[in-house]
Amino acid sequence: MMIKITLPDGSVREFEKGVTAMGVAKSISEGLAKKVLAASVNDQVWDATRAIETDATLKLLTWDDADAKSTFRHSTAHLMAEAVQSMFPKVKFWVGPAVENGFYYDMDLGDATLTEEHLVQLEKKMAELAKKNSSFDRKPISKQDAINYFTEKGDEYKLDLLSNLADGEITFYTQGDFTDLCRGPHIPNTSFIKAVKLMSVAGAYWKGDEKNKQLTRVYGTSFPNQKELDEYLLMLEEAKKRDHRKLGKELGIFTMDDDVGQGLPLWLPNGTIIIEELEKLAKETENAAGYKRVVTPHIAKESMYLTSGHLPYYADSMFPPMELDGTKYYLKAMNCPHHHKIFDAEPKSYKDLPFRIAEYGTCYRYEQSGELFGLMRVRCLHMNDAHIYCNKEQFAQEFRAVNEMYIKYFNIFGVDKYVMRLSLHDPEKLGQKYVNEPTLWAETETMVRNALIELNIPYVEVKDEAAFYGPKIDVQIWSAIGREFTLATNQVDFNSGNKFKLSFTNKDNSPEVPLIIHRAPLGTHERFIGFLLEHYAGKFPTWLAPLQVKILPISDKFMDYAHEVLAKLKKADIRAEIDDRNEKIGKKIRDTELSRVPYMLVFGEKEIASNAVAVRRQGKGDIGVQDIDTFVEALVAEIKERRGE
Amino acid sequence: MMIKITLPDGSVREFEKGVTAMGVAKSISEGLAKKVLAASVNDQVWDATRAIETDATLKLLTWDDADAKSTFRHSTAHLMAEAVQSMFPKVKFWVGPAVENGFYYDMDLGDATLTEEHLVQLEKKMAELAKKNSSFDRKPISKQDAINYFTEKGDEYKLDLLSNLADGEITFYTQGDFTDLCRGPHIPNTSFIKAVKLMSVAGAYWKGDEKNKQLTRVYGTSFPNQKELDEYLLMLEEAKKRDHRKLGKELGIFTMDDDVGQGLPLWLPNGTIIIEELEKLAKETENAAGYKRVVTPHIAKESMYLTSGHLPYYADSMFPPMELDGTKYYLKAMNCPHHHKIFDAEPKSYKDLPFRIAEYGTCYRYEQSGELFGLMRVRCLHMNDAHIYCNKEQFAQEFRAVNEMYIKYFNIFGVDKYVMRLSLHDPEKLGQKYVNEPTLWAETETMVRNALIELNIPYVEVKDEAAFYGPKIDVQIWSAIGREFTLATNQVDFNSGNKFKLSFTNKDNSPEVPLIIHRAPLGTHERFIGFLLEHYAGKFPTWLAPLQVKILPISDKFMDYAHEVLAKLKKADIRAEIDDRNEKIGKKIRDTELSRVPYMLVFGEKEIASNAVAVRRQGKGDIGVQDIDTFVEALVAEIKERRGE
Repeated sequence: MMIKITLPDGSVREFEKGVTAMGVAKSISEGLAKKVLAASVNDQVWDATRAIETDATLKLLTWDDADAKSTFRHSTAHLMAEAVQSMFPKVKFWVGPAVENGFYYDMDLGDATLTEEHLVQLEKKMAELAKKNSSFDRKPISKQDAINYFTEKGDEYKLDLLSNLADGEITFYTQGDFTDLCRGPHIPNTSFIKAVKLMSVAGAYWKGDEKNKQLTRVYGTSFPNQKELDEYLLMLEEAKKRDHRKLGKELGIFTMDDDVGQGLPLWLPNGTIIIEELEKLAKETENAAGYKRVVTPHIAKESMYLTSGHLPYYADSMFPPMELDGTKYYLKAMNCPHHHKIFDAEPKSYKDLPFRIAEYGTCYRYEQSGELFGLMRVRCLHMNDAHIYCNKEQFAQEFRAVNEMYIKYFNIFGVDKYVMRLSLHDPEKLGQKYVNEPTLWAETETMVRNALIELNIPYVEVKDEAAFYGPKIDVQIWSAIGREFTLATNQVDFNSGNKFKLSFTNKDNSPEVPLIIHRAPLGTHERFIGFLLEHYAGKFPTWLAPLQVKILPISDKFMDYAHEVLAKLKKADIRAEIDDRNEKIGKKIRDTELSRVPYMLVFGEKEIASNAVAVRRQGKGDIGVQDIDTFVEALVAEIKERRGE
Repeated sequence: MMIKITLPDGSVREFEKGVTAMGVAKSISEGLAKKVLAASVNDQVWDATRAIETDATLKLLTWDDADAKSTFRHSTAHLMAEAVQSMFPKVKFWVGPAVENGFYYDMDLGDATLTEEHLVQLEKKMAELAKKNSSFDRKPISKQDAINYFTEKGDEYKLDLLSNLADGEITFYTQGDFTDLCRGPHIPNTSFIKAVKLMSVAGAYWKGDEKNKQLTRVYGTSFPNQKELDEYLLMLEEAKKRDHRKLGKELGIFTMDDDVGQGLPLWLPNGTIIIEELEKLAKETENAAGYKRVVTPHIAKESMYLTSGHLPYYADSMFPPMELDGTKYYLKAMNCPHHHKIFDAEPKSYKDLPFRIAEYGTCYRYEQSGELFGLMRVRCLHMNDAHIYCNKEQFAQEFRAVNEMYIKYFNIFGVDKYVMRLSLHDPEKLGQKYVNEPTLWAETETMVRNALIELNIPYVEVKDEAAFYGPKIDVQIWSAIGREFTLATNQVDFNSGNKFKLSFTNKDNSPEVPLIIHRAPLGTHERFIGFLLEHYAGKFPTWLAPLQVKILPISDKFMDYAHEVLAKLKKADIRAEIDDRNEKIGKKIRDTELSRVPYMLVFGEKEIASNAVAVRRQGKGDIGVQDIDTFVEALVAEIKERRGE
């Protein structure tokens, strides 16, 4: 019997019932088959070796797909378990999921101890096992049979897992000598795992509860070839050097204080300069794009968040309320409702649209203290926020302009790699998970997609992950060393206008509800400055650098000239200072180099005679003697144009 | 027997025991005596006609002294009571204090009703009674005699007052036919009261409790001559036209919203432009004065405010806490503690001092809802805050520089009248009301006073009103129509350094606690913009105006030129827009005039032929035809220099 397989390009091909994704791949090309790690069958991730019994849509998943990567890492966790079992036969396993950039497995080693020293041995064993080319075999099993199996083995951990599973289909996976209770999926066989690095050993309480026994957790990562693993490890090493918490302290960017509270950075003078430069950039850009600016309070009454729908659903992510005169006030976790009130403050007509309002609004969100991380996960967020209120005819152009603004920023900051993740609705869930406006969904999703295509923006589509009120775009960017950051989210919103009873008088003199675009291209100061610290390794381009020029007279004798130079720089609004310490010029240069100041101006009798300075550029060393006025002029241009290196 | 009277200039004169302040005044000059309304005897305000029995310091109080003004107004309240009593013989009086700019008296009229219509009659009666030249006679009386007196009269109100008085000296005051329980003091006689205006009648619950009976409250004011009263009434009328709430709405400056909450203004685009211009001014000024900028969160843990001492003492003025993970977080009501933490974030040496950090920090304070008033009394305050950490040698210069900054701002905003109110400690209360540092008090008070004298700043001294931790200066300014505003407070602080364990390494390599200056020359955006709206009647100087230039082509035919002009203005960062409505030029000009835009550029064929525009200046009308480039150049200079009109 034949079944119909629909491929991503829409083409439909017929295969024998029971064909596997791997079989389909092979029918296309052997080269492709060698890359297939898993498959998406009817939007579910499956083993590429699993038989397909009915008509289905099929997408072959290779290393570039996120789902393939986690399948690969999860299979590596099984491979590691096999290796551990060969070394510690009494081991019992708890869970072994894929995580960001890798995997772990939690295990009970009984009286034995697994230390960092064992990791190399384990890696060797894994390499050996991988070469055996063992397939990952899937075996459906009844719950009772599974219970019998693990009871016999005396494995209380897997029995605990089983006790929480419904009676439906349960599966075992076996590769080589290792069998595990696992819902899968897995890669076809172990030979795909060509490069493994076990990163660390840690203690982890069973089920995360400190009253329980401590298990041993081994973290690792894996790649389909050694080159990618090497690059990844190099990136990690570089990321460690560029750790924004370390650089943030060294460069006087921010501090945390226990009396202020966790996740609440205090911005030191150098960090504040960066904040102000970013806000200046945003204001210039937004002014030029026709935005108006507003300022709103950090709190509002409960009633506002009941209207917006953030309460009660979002309450866990908000700070608890303050009760005053019998009314509850909340710290704002987002700026939207305040902005809607500003739209509503004065009557609007179609002539006032698009109405674009922007604010670097500070929001407060409750993150679990265990989740807080430097500037990356905080409780206080200074957000590059804006809302655009427009009608349907204006929407496409407005949305395009927002994306153009992103691209403009990416160019300024030298972000070469980025992708937009377009989350769409699921038509079957209209009226439940998604606001019931099928026409608006279709229109806006098409417009959003077209804007991305027109601007040549790399993007991926994800079904059934839109917001309740419209399609959503998450923007991912990569730092100079290749680490991924989630920068911001754009949302299209056809719902809040109704909720807040917003309207404008249209050309037919009737009230009409505006569409709303939420956007924040520079994300939050916290996360973006954290990103920039890593991206630039603290060596900010001149326009962002807290100190732009250091003046280094070769000797105290030349202090007058130093002050003349300083005055010229200050007059041109350049952030400069003199190193007037009684130190040798060599040490002054070395210290300035360490503090990552973009330019150093060195001079003695010779330079002064010709009104010049010897210029040193951060990271490049001496770039020659320049006339001081020429230097200042060039520097002003570099800053004004916000040039990178 | 003779007693010694010490006058404010330090001179000591001998008088017969029992001399009155008025007697002393007459011994100096009859002219002076005619102006004496009350006296300060040993720092207590007395009747000028009361006998002085011991050696004393004496200051004669005339109309210019705040204490004399309230004595005068309180005496007028008694005069009004006499007039009311003559018109409503069954009236019983509750309290009749002086208030800002006037007085009121609360009364129970039984079945009778006093309406606005009675006020003119009452004024006439008061003028009549005043002319009788009745003296205000003070009579000490025992509490029992006073009780007997009011029991006989059946006056439950005064008996209630008496029941709350201690047994000490109680006094009655009598003028003409009216006797009142009153601690005084009063002016010598009724003839001083030459101009009275009764402003309004209102209901007022007895003791402010709505469960009690409603009394009748009559508000009034009075002056020593008609001219001053007329000026005051004119000012009130003008102030009504310039009401910042009315102008704030008309000009799109701010809005309030019930879902956000009372006292929490949302700043609309035009208001935000003013905020940003003020912040730009502050940043430029503070950068030039060597301040560094910081950004701090709006919340902090309870422990911080326990350290600072704001908790528990200041708790009533703070928003209630939010409890999270068992820790209480408070919205900040002041920026100081956060700034102290920034001082403390990195080790400091004497070379880092003075360390000046500035922030337009947003604070939240709980004001009773009845106290809230437009932008003047709010719950959210954007404060032009900064703290200067310095050593004793640097203090005088730093304090002088702060005052120079005030003067600079006063010049920019055309504030001609201002006074600084210097609050000093009381040496007898050291260690109780005031931190026990007699030397530091003496030193800093002298330095503060000298700075005020050197800079020729008008100031008054007030004893026993300093902050716990140092002398304090309240800055009062007057708007263009002569209304008084409290702008800001400066404080010297020798205590917080200890509380927060702040220190720097001094030249002797020992730890030393810094002195701290708190300062906020532009006060809060809320109050200052409220002041500016009244001060300028909404006609902002060009640099502050939300829209600076309106372009008015005489006809649609000239729209290309309008866009050329717009482009030139935008390029020069001038806020401009075209009035492209299909209206007659006369109407366009009138509308623009009403919206208070500083400049209008009008043009037709003639102007375009010579690359010119006809310029109209707000309030001045046509100021001639100018070459467009010349106009732009001049305007850029006007804005850059922040010129007034």
